[in-house]
Parts: sequence; structure tokens; C-alpha cells
Amino acid sequence: MALTQARTPPGVLELLPLDQIAFQGMLDTIRRNYELFGFLPVETPVMEYADVLLTKSGGETERQVYFVQSTGALEKAERPDLALRFDLTVPLARYVAEHEHDLNFPFRRYQMQRVYRGERAQRGRFREFYQCDVDVIGKDALSVRYDAEIPAVIYSVFRDLAIGPFTIQLNNRRLMRGWFEGLGIADGERQMLVLREVDKLDKRGPDYVRQTLTGDGFGLSAETAGRILDFVQVRSTSLADAHAQLDALGSGSETFEQGRRELREVLDLIAAFGVPQTHFALNLSIARGLDYYTGTVYETTLNDHPQIGSICSGGRYENLAGNYTKSHLPGVGISIGLTRLYWQLREAGLVGTATSSVQALVTQMDPARLADYLALAGELRDAGVATEVVMDPSKLGKQFKYADRAGIRFVLVLGEDEIAKGVVTVKDLRREDQFEVARADLAATLQVELAQAAAVR
Amino acid sequence: MALTQARTPPGVLELLPLDQIAFQGMLDTIRRNYELFGFLPVETPVMEYADVLLTKSGGETERQVYFVQSTGALEKAERPDLALRFDLTVPLARYVAEHEHDLNFPFRRYQMQRVYRGERAQRGRFREFYQCDVDVIGKDALSVRYDAEIPAVIYSVFRDLAIGPFTIQLNNRRLMRGWFEGLGIADGERQMLVLREVDKLDKRGPDYVRQTLTGDGFGLSAETAGRILDFVQVRSTSLADAHAQLDALGSGSETFEQGRRELREVLDLIAAFGVPQTHFALNLSIARGLDYYTGTVYETTLNDHPQIGSICSGGRYENLAGNYTKSHLPGVGISIGLTRLYWQLREAGLVGTATSSVQALVTQMDPARLADYLALAGELRDAGVATEVVMDPSKLGKQFKYADRAGIRFVLVLGEDEIAKGVVTVKDLRREDQFEVARADLAATLQVELAQAAAVR
Repeated sequence: MALTQARTPPGVLELLPLDQIAFQGMLDTIRRNYELFGFLPVETPVMEYADVLLTKSGGETERQVYFVQSTGALEKAERPDLALRFDLTVPLARYVAEHEHDLNFPFRRYQMQRVYRGERAQRGRFREFYQCDVDVIGKDALSVRYDAEIPAVIYSVFRDLAIGPFTIQLNNRRLMRGWFEGLGIADGERQMLVLREVDKLDKRGPDYVRQTLTGDGFGLSAETAGRILDFVQVRSTSLADAHAQLDALGSGSETFEQGRRELREVLDLIAAFGVPQTHFALNLSIARGLDYYTGTVYETTLNDHPQIGSICSGGRYENLAGNYTKSHLPGVGISIGLTRLYWQLREAGLVGTATSSVQALVTQMDPARLADYLALAGELRDAGVATEVVMDPSKLGKQFKYADRAGIRFVLVLGEDEIAKGVVTVKDLRREDQFEVARADLAATLQVELAQAAAVR
Repeated sequence: MALTQARTPPGVLELLPLDQIAFQGMLDTIRRNYELFGFLPVETPVMEYADVLLTKSGGETERQVYFVQSTGALEKAERPDLALRFDLTVPLARYVAEHEHDLNFPFRRYQMQRVYRGERAQRGRFREFYQCDVDVIGKDALSVRYDAEIPAVIYSVFRDLAIGPFTIQLNNRRLMRGWFEGLGIADGERQMLVLREVDKLDKRGPDYVRQTLTGDGFGLSAETAGRILDFVQVRSTSLADAHAQLDALGSGSETFEQGRRELREVLDLIAAFGVPQTHFALNLSIARGLDYYTGTVYETTLNDHPQIGSICSGGRYENLAGNYTKSHLPGVGISIGLTRLYWQLREAGLVGTATSSVQALVTQMDPARLADYLALAGELRDAGVATEVVMDPSKLGKQFKYADRAGIRFVLVLGEDEIAKGVVTVKDLRREDQFEVARADLAATLQVELAQAAAVR
């Protein structure tokens, strides 16, 4: 029979088991922190009605959408009425509008699922990737105080992910808009165009941006361009410094002052949440590409790996689900694009292959003793130790080699000698150590070792 | 602006948060047990190349497939080259063939992801549903002993899911085939047709099946039909009874004897794995619809809810990935269709809405004290208690009502009195109890209460 080549489509990240364990560990860490902060899980179907999904998206998004149709619809050459979600925000809006009367507000949800975009295939670009989102949605109103909770969650997540020092950077769209108004750039559309140029600051540098802003397209005066650049280059080094830098901006329009009040309150509360001052800062260049955010905006960067860019972004939006309901639903949220982050961390050598989720291997010395090996494994599993048993007879050396290749830490030997003495021989492949332990103490001994290893990891 | 109606496509199960928590709890229980038995996680992309996915499936499967194409491909009216996976077995075969040289054999993997089938929309039928699979794949050979491990995993899973007494039922395709051969029904195709009729035994009863088998289509003698019915009605009540019933079948062909030897070894080993004899039994009517299984086959039923049918099925197959590789890869595995199971359990009133994953709510007595509330919440989170803080001022009664509706058990009050006394007032909404506890003891107190609740659940 002719063989079909086993292969995956481009733009997906499929992992070998030990890498999958590392990835799963990151997912678990994120979920644990989202839950500790009192967010509730939601999962939505991967397929949505195309008209529901594409209500508010422009042409660019639409071109990247994957449409879905069953064989029957395909044969009828119908236009597909289903599509794969391209983010978790539109499904959240649909979910909240659909279930509005069954939800409690403020509605605090987390969602960790894969999304799909028909991106051009390219190294490090994914067509299927995990997003891990948290959002708080208010009914009619939502205090700006929630804008401080999101960075607190993000701080816990990245502290526990232990991928190096990071900074949560904040700005406020009202502050930014007010600043532009004060410079005579009152038109929203024009502000967006300027912000788009300002977004290039990190990549192209201030001179390039200054040139563009004073050039034919924008025609701003050198002074105006200079004030814009002064503004967007503000970074803070501590909470007190952040307040001082906000002071130093002078007075401005009502929009500007509202943005500044919000930023001050959010900054103070982030500190009250226990986030160290080393881990959050003002960065008045942050605009976020989307036209979507209205107040606080966030980006998070790894201090030692700026080239990775923002590893977690989001902000405050005025109305989540205006396409589906007349209810006014303001919210604030953030998203971690975990597939891309994992891939970049791996490229940068910051995450390695995990040790196996299998913690112990019970070897097989004598096929006639299999029932003893199974009983031993059962005791370990009851104690929470993930245990595999060699079910087929083979040479002991081969069994050790298997454990080593598979990344299993503890190899257990229960031979006639051990059974007679009431002990088990434990070979610790990580410490390259071997010891005997009383059968009755084995589970507790391994538990202690594994807990220690988990604590230092 | 015209509103789009927020709605999900038919055939998907979208849950409210407290139901999602219950569902997630089941997923976690399954995963924990799969990992305790030493299975490694794998996730595959939802989209596969259509030619890879549809290699061996017949017309029926193909008609149920969802094809995927990006906007670009749609505009070019190309035949879609991507499709959504309809099970986890074909992706496993592709995965093992693709990564064969990077895997250790026996390869023990679990996979818990959603699959997609364009089923006719119907109550209780899903187009998107979770499958939770475990499989052991051997290279060249895989001992029948692994066939006993799968029921041991399944026993742990359903014991921990605590959805009532259940029985793992076993048969062996070789035993069955050998029995038919002994009755002169040697042709494989004909055996399959007879087995298909036998599969209707539970639904239609023995008389219906006897009539069909002796009717024009099959033309079997009354005696042959009788012997078939005698065989398929074998059920065991204990391990000894299972062996006695296998004895009572008399001697048979080599195929038959091999099947019987396998069944005996598997049954004995299941007991050695510690599975109580009340939880597994012979059931010689089990054939499994698929032409795929070659040896041991399993079905699992809830003793008190036979109408739900098999909640977990699988078996031994000869060669996993013959369409993709020349390597011979025998395996054994099982699948839990969790979405359908959850839905049926809910319909039968066997799973309710969970209590919230949020365990404590810190109320807001005085907006000026918010920093104190946040500090308290931080202490609880550090102790692993999932804690939400009321961020907006509102009446205390409203805050209690919110906790009650949201299913949060502990409501914490930290007023001036409490702060002065160094205590926190805890209202336990579950026990309808209220008490004061020293601030320093709060986390430990809640930990104990929550651990007790988890233990009795």
C-alpha cells in the first residue's frame, strides 16, 4: 500500500512529550494564578457563526479568518457560515451578551484556548496558538480600580513562570489623547495616525519619528513634534518617580487630567496589591495598535530580552459587546500569547525540556513477580507519585536506559533480595545516587524528594 | 447600529462558569489519573492535512468531516486541503509515524482535546466534543499485559469521578472470531455482519437477533444461532466465575484458544492491579463497531444507568499507523467522550453545578481601607486560597448577595472593629455559620476547611 507522508500543516507548534510537559507546566502556572485571583473559567466553541465573529472586524482580520464547512455544505458550494475564532475577545463579547442574565457582574473570567489566524507562514508566526486571557467586565460601570488588579495577576503569573526579570509597563489613552489635544491635534483620526508613528519609536528611534511627524504627511512644527517625543519617552524608575514625572507634565485638558488621575490611582493600587516597584513602570509610548482601548493600557517585557517584545498586553475598553447587546459593558483585560512566548523562550534558551511527568519506574526483575511490582506501583500512585511499571520482561540495563532516555528520575528495583529484606532499591538518575529504603517508607521518601525538586525549580 | 444576535452554532456545549468548573474538575481528575499511571501528554493541531486525516476512513466518516480554508483559498474556490480532526486516534497515528525516532517505546501517551464531527444536529449529539484518550504503542510488539493496565487506569478515573458504581466489561476479538470459526463461519466479512447483529442484543433482545440470524439474510441453523446467542450472553460475576465460564466454553480453534489465554491473563492482571472484582467482568457480547480492534475490547457502563450506554470504550489494535509508516506499531487504548458523558450525567442529575473555584471574597467596608483588603487577599493567595476582592464600594448586603449568587463559600469582613482586635470575621455561606478568627490564623483556618470539603466531595 502506498504510504501517506505523516506531516503537520505549516504554522502549528506540535511538541514532543517532554516539551509538551514544559508547555503544560506554563499553562498550569497561568491557570493557578488566574484562579487564585478569583477568575472563573470559560471555554467557548472553536467554531462561531461567521456573521457573529466578523461583526466588527475590518478587512485585514477577515482575510486571516479560517472558514469551516462540512462535506455536505462543500458539495452544495455554499458560502461557509462557520469560522474559527481568531481571538478570545470576540467570543467573550458574544458569550457575555448571550448569557448576560445568567452571569454575575463584575464578571471575572479567564479563558485559555487556541485561536486561529491564516497568517503568512513564517518562522515564529503561528496559525494556531494559545491565548490565555483574563478580563473583568462590569455592567454599566466598572471602577478604574480593576485596572490595577490586572497587573497584579500578571505579576504573579510571570513571577511563578520564573523566566527572568520583567516589567509591566503602563500608559493611559486618555492622558495621551489629552496631551495631543493640548498640542492642537484634536481630531481622533489624526491622533491615531500620530500614535501609529509613535509606536515605531522603539524600532526606528526618535529621529525617524521626528522626521515623519514634521514631514509632509503630518506637517507638525518642530516644537510640537518635540513635545510629542518628550511625552512618549517618559519612563519611571519607581512609584515616586512615576508620580513626579506625571507632575512634570504640567496641567492639561480635562481628558488629560482624567487620564492622569486614573494612572495615579492605578499605580498606587498596583503597589498596594504587593507588586514590587521594580516590576511596574510608566511608559508613555505605549499606545497599543488597536483602536479598542480607551483608558489604561499595558505591555510587559522581559528586561533581559527586549527583542522578544511585549509578552502580555491589554487594557481598558469602554464597551465590550456593543455589536450584540444594548447593555453597556465596560471592561479591562489582558492576554498572554503562550505559543509564541514559549517558542521565543525556547529559542532564547530560557525554557528547556522538562523532566518527565513520570516520576518513578518500577523495573521488572522476574516476570513471575509482576503482581508485586504492580502492588508497589499502586502504593506509590495512592501517594501521588506518577509511576510506570515495566510490563514486558527485558534486561535490567535496557530498563535503566529507557528511564534515562524518557527523563524518569527514580528507577525502583524490587528483586528477591529486596523482597526478603523488606526494602526497595532506589536509583536516583538525577542525583546519580543509589540507596535502599524500607518498603513502608518508600512513598514518603519519594514525596519529600519530589517536593524539594519542585520547590527549587 | 443594528445588533447581531449573539448565538452559538448547534451541536456545541457551552457552559456557564459554575458548570464549566464542574466540567474542568472532571478533566482534571482524568488527567491526574492518566499522569499517575505514567502516561505522557500530547497535543496535536486541530487542523490536519485532509489527505493525512482521511487516508483510511470510509465514506461515512468523510461525510462528517469539517473542512477548513482561509479566506484566500475560499476566493480561489480551491478544494480545501485542511480538515478538523474527527478523533484523536488518527492524529496519534500521524504523530507517532512523524516523530517515531524521537519517541521512546512503549510510547504511553494521553491526549485530551476536542474533536469535530458534522453530525446531524440532535439533542445529546455533539459536533464539537472532548475526547480523553490513553494509549500504549509498542514498536514491533506489545505484550498483552498492557491490555490489563488500561482497565486499571479506567478504574482509578471513574472511582475518583465518583459518579456511582460502574463495571469495566471485557471481551476478546480472537475468542469471538475463533468461536465463529468453530461454527463454520470462517469468513471475516461474514463474521463482521453477524457481529453487527449481535451488537443489537441489548437494544433489540435475543429473539430479534435469533430471528435475523436464522432468516434469509444469514440462513444459519437454529442450533448455530443458539450457540452464538449462548456465547454472547456470557457475563461473569467474579474473577473465579470468569475463569469458570471461559472453561465452560469447551475447546476450540487455535484463534479461539489464543483469545482465551489472553483474556485469562488480562483478567488475572487486572485483579493484580488492585481493581476490585466488583468492577470488571466478562461480557462476550462486546464486539465494538469498528473493524479496527484485534484482541481485547472494553466497554464501561454505569451499573445504575445502563441507558447511558458505554461511557468509555477501546481495545487492542494490531497496527496503529500502517498508512504512514512501514513500522509495525501495535497498541492498546481507550477513549472517554467527556462532553457527551458530562451532558448525560447532568441530564440524569448525577453532576450538579459546582461550588465556585473562588473560595473567599474580601468585602469592602470602607473604600479608604482598600489597601488592607488587598493585603489580606494577598496573604490568602500566598496560602493557595482563591480570593476575590470587592474593588468598588457598595452596601455590605449587596456584597453578601453577590457571594451567594456566585457560589463563593467564605465571605470575609475586615471592619474597624476587626482591625482594632486583630481579627477577621468569616461568614461561611455553606454552613450558614459566622465566626471570628485571629488574622494570623485565617489562612490556615480556611485551608483546613477547604481541605475537609475537598475530601468529602
